[in-house]
Amino acid sequence: MMKPDRLLPALIWLRRYDRETMASDALAALIVTIMLIPQSLAYAMLAGLPPQVGLYASVAPLLLYALFGTSRTLAVGPVAVVSLMTAAAVSQVATPGSPEYLAAALLLALLSGLILLGMGLLRLGFVANFLSHPVISGFISASGILIAVSQIKHITGIPAGGDTLPAMLGALWHGMDRINIPTLIIGVAATGFLFCVRRWLKLLLRRVGLGPRPADMIAKAGPVAAIAVSIGAVILLDLDRAGVRIVGAIPQGLPPLTLPSFDADLWGRLLPAALLLSLVGFVESVSVAQTLAAKRRQRIDADQELIGLGAANLGAALTGGYPVSGGFARSVVNFDAGAQTPMASVLTAGGIATAALFLTPLFFHLPQAVLAATIIVAVLSLVDLGALARIFRYSRSDFAAQAATMALVLLVGVESGIMAGVVLSVLLFLWRTSRPHMAIVGRVPGTEHFRNVGRHRVDECPSLLSIRVDESLYFANARYLEDRIQALVAARPEVKHVVLMCSAVNLIDASALESLEAITERLTTSGVTFHLSEVKGPVMDQLHQTDFLKHLTGRVFLSQFDAWAALSCIEIQAGPLNQGASCP
Amino acid sequence: MMKPDRLLPALIWLRRYDRETMASDALAALIVTIMLIPQSLAYAMLAGLPPQVGLYASVAPLLLYALFGTSRTLAVGPVAVVSLMTAAAVSQVATPGSPEYLAAALLLALLSGLILLGMGLLRLGFVANFLSHPVISGFISASGILIAVSQIKHITGIPAGGDTLPAMLGALWHGMDRINIPTLIIGVAATGFLFCVRRWLKLLLRRVGLGPRPADMIAKAGPVAAIAVSIGAVILLDLDRAGVRIVGAIPQGLPPLTLPSFDADLWGRLLPAALLLSLVGFVESVSVAQTLAAKRRQRIDADQELIGLGAANLGAALTGGYPVSGGFARSVVNFDAGAQTPMASVLTAGGIATAALFLTPLFFHLPQAVLAATIIVAVLSLVDLGALARIFRYSRSDFAAQAATMALVLLVGVESGIMAGVVLSVLLFLWRTSRPHMAIVGRVPGTEHFRNVGRHRVDECPSLLSIRVDESLYFANARYLEDRIQALVAARPEVKHVVLMCSAVNLIDASALESLEAITERLTTSGVTFHLSEVKGPVMDQLHQTDFLKHLTGRVFLSQFDAWAALSCIEIQAGPLNQGASCP
Repeated sequence: MMKPDRLLPALIWLRRYDRETMASDALAALIVTIMLIPQSLAYAMLAGLPPQVGLYASVAPLLLYALFGTSRTLAVGPVAVVSLMTAAAVSQVATPGSPEYLAAALLLALLSGLILLGMGLLRLGFVANFLSHPVISGFISASGILIAVSQIKHITGIPAGGDTLPAMLGALWHGMDRINIPTLIIGVAATGFLFCVRRWLKLLLRRVGLGPRPADMIAKAGPVAAIAVSIGAVILLDLDRAGVRIVGAIPQGLPPLTLPSFDADLWGRLLPAALLLSLVGFVESVSVAQTLAAKRRQRIDADQELIGLGAANLGAALTGGYPVSGGFARSVVNFDAGAQTPMASVLTAGGIATAALFLTPLFFHLPQAVLAATIIVAVLSLVDLGALARIFRYSRSDFAAQAATMALVLLVGVESGIMAGVVLSVLLFLWRTSRPHMAIVGRVPGTEHFRNVGRHRVDECPSLLSIRVDESLYFANARYLEDRIQALVAARPEVKHVVLMCSAVNLIDASALESLEAITERLTTSGVTFHLSEVKGPVMDQLHQTDFLKHLTGRVFLSQFDAWAALSCIEIQAGPLNQGASCP
Repeated sequence: MMKPDRLLPALIWLRRYDRETMASDALAALIVTIMLIPQSLAYAMLAGLPPQVGLYASVAPLLLYALFGTSRTLAVGPVAVVSLMTAAAVSQVATPGSPEYLAAALLLALLSGLILLGMGLLRLGFVANFLSHPVISGFISASGILIAVSQIKHITGIPAGGDTLPAMLGALWHGMDRINIPTLIIGVAATGFLFCVRRWLKLLLRRVGLGPRPADMIAKAGPVAAIAVSIGAVILLDLDRAGVRIVGAIPQGLPPLTLPSFDADLWGRLLPAALLLSLVGFVESVSVAQTLAAKRRQRIDADQELIGLGAANLGAALTGGYPVSGGFARSVVNFDAGAQTPMASVLTAGGIATAALFLTPLFFHLPQAVLAATIIVAVLSLVDLGALARIFRYSRSDFAAQAATMALVLLVGVESGIMAGVVLSVLLFLWRTSRPHMAIVGRVPGTEHFRNVGRHRVDECPSLLSIRVDESLYFANARYLEDRIQALVAARPEVKHVVLMCSAVNLIDASALESLEAITERLTTSGVTFHLSEVKGPVMDQLHQTDFLKHLTGRVFLSQFDAWAALSCIEIQAGPLNQGASCP
């Protein structure tokens, strides 16, 4: 039986909840709400959905994550990359703007919720580990570029489409003559303003003498100022008549109850996208949550996070939203603003619900260009091209996986990109371990230590070949092992004993076991005895399950030194040094 | 520049060729030719092709492999599993019996040749390693069962189709009333006879006093006897009028020159099958070739084998054949019969060419049931159900991959089976390494050795946490590492230093590097210093390419003992034992 605390992590913090914590949480909730209102409208636009969908996705999901999630400070809701993936997936099955599009987005949230929940119940959190950091980081950077470029149409007024970077740039280029000057002015001004606020306002305010807290608060309110000023400008100058596209009427009211479609064909078509989207959202959430938890020596449980995020997405699907995830920037803001418990998220949800009930008429004249500007400024912080150079220096194969992911995301699409990245990083890992480092070792004179004969001055015995293999033995390198040992022995006709030193072998799978059997047999037919040394306990236990040890012509030595003592043609020196050599 | 010996391995053995070797090779060639004539007709039938295609595939491919291959004794030609895969692939794009079917088989050989040749030139021989032994063995066993069942229609005369085991069995069941009694008698008699010959004839002949050589030769001629007797029976009893299907007219003549189709659509549709078929054929050939080479302390070169097999398949494509590979049984026969060099294959090709020119009219009355019997008896030796039990005992995850491969081959098809097997074995390997064994280690009193605190009586210092991780660090286990270290530290508030002992870490990829950075940062924010110990040379070299060592709050110790000496709260004892502990 699971303990209730385990099932509902909220019980843990609710039990000790007090007024002081409430004050901290309330302040954090206020700041996050101010940040989330424009973001939720903007990300809904990015996903190709009506603005209120963004608000709806910021109520129930937050409440559900607060109940089931294990992170104290993760801010769940609409995020940029998941919105982009939603747009990519949903626009393949429905026309943007149609009721089918909205229904497909709901269904995507439902599928994503079911996948996450299912993975959580099956404790499959480790699956996310198959997305390597370089692939994820390449994917996020490329998605950031793609999102930023996709917003250029909103800040220029050029009606341009396209899913890939070349298509978008081409459409913008061809639509150049349809640029809308008032939109362009608003868009560029808002982008520049938000960029400066983000970069310099806080520093400036500190310099003119403000305390760090108020400086931070004012800087956070930058987007609100941009929104207020631009709404004022549109009303005063009648800019919507001049071709500036505005948000328009947003229905007032709480999130509606919705029931996603049960069309089996649509389920099948959205499933692969839902899977990728869930994994990407989960990996991002967990890494943010883990970083924040560590700062306060708290812990998160990856499998329970799956359940928390799954519940949040189911909530989105049932209340008119679309797929949600844990947001990086918003979570950091929440944490920095002093959030202590998920109550901050509950209060944020209350704030957004209030906005949906009462404030939506205020956004009627809000130019879409300003929302696009908030997206551009937000996603550019996701783009980390320096990572390419860093990873290139560190490892060519990781770089290859990252570069391929980025190229495919930009040139083909988000889904192809992430899938190619996953496949490539697995193949490259297999390739890297498929030719393990193998060294012929000899005895460091007078000691029990054995070192690579190519790098150290060591004793060797011509009839004894000791080979250390620096990798677990499994299918990808089993044949290589056979081949190398065969080559080494073929080059040394005087060899009578081969010892495989297994100190770095953490695993021998069935393929490698067959290879070891083949090696034993081949060596036997050519008159050489095959031994093992320094086999680890768990590996030895597994070998005992088989006939291998019966077929092994030689012995299994506990240490390489025992093998040397038994098989070497060089007598072990007696003398003062030997004392050192025989220490335990 | 490549040496000519490298380019054309035949130059190596041709240079020292003498009369004595020729005599050995000629005898082996004679035996293999006698074995290959019925097999080539039978495997062509299995592939759904006219019988002469099997003969054609046994001439040029043998000559080309003899020139380019590195194995001295591998017998290339039509083989059972590749014939089955050919039938599965080609019947998806053309109707059996049609000229398009023949053309598609030619094209498959061409594609397979190009793939193998391309892989050889790019030195991609290691790709074959991604097929694990359990997957290959499961695939071969299941294919053997599938092939045997597919031949039941020929030995019963029931006109039944189907690509999967249930479909075949269903069709046989429903066609039960259309059984042809004379066919059934011939088929069952031939199968029983061949089975007994294979099992017992040699033993029997030895027992009645024959020498091992003649006994072996007579046993090998068993199929020839079955063929002769059955042809005689058909002619004498006019059995073809009674519904016994016979081979019929086989055109006399040398293999024709053929040009495969250049239809791009067909290329695309056959490419995946060609890739799988090439890999399976290559893996089988290489393992046979390696086993035989090892018996005489010879070597084969996997990349050159790709070129040899690629050339053989191109040869098949240009001379009216179909995909070929190295055959297991035939190679062993070739080796045992005394073949010394590929000249044996050249002579075999000559024998088959002679048969194609002059002997085909003899096979006019050969019942297809006898060919089916030779197939059944041959493939049943491929089926190794004991492997399932052995692998189950050794490793559950290898067993899962094998069982899934077998089930899918039998129930869905050969291609799904092998693909699922490959994907599953990779995923299971990642899963097994995704939760590496990690042990908290302490010092074995009075020594420099450090052991698992859970298993040994060792000294521990409460402020120093030493963790040994028994696996390379890479994307699949990077997050687990973060999580485990965080959990271990969270449970020990008194810890001031964490040392990660890397003696079993053969690789740190970019994901793991980021995790190490995250661990450092998180430990720092909670006041703990992070150190490494026993980092291997190549791993350390790679870490030096990055900023990691600058960010590392602690140090990198050469040995765990150095770390203990520097960080432990327990003073290192002086005394007689210490002498042992300080040995180099």
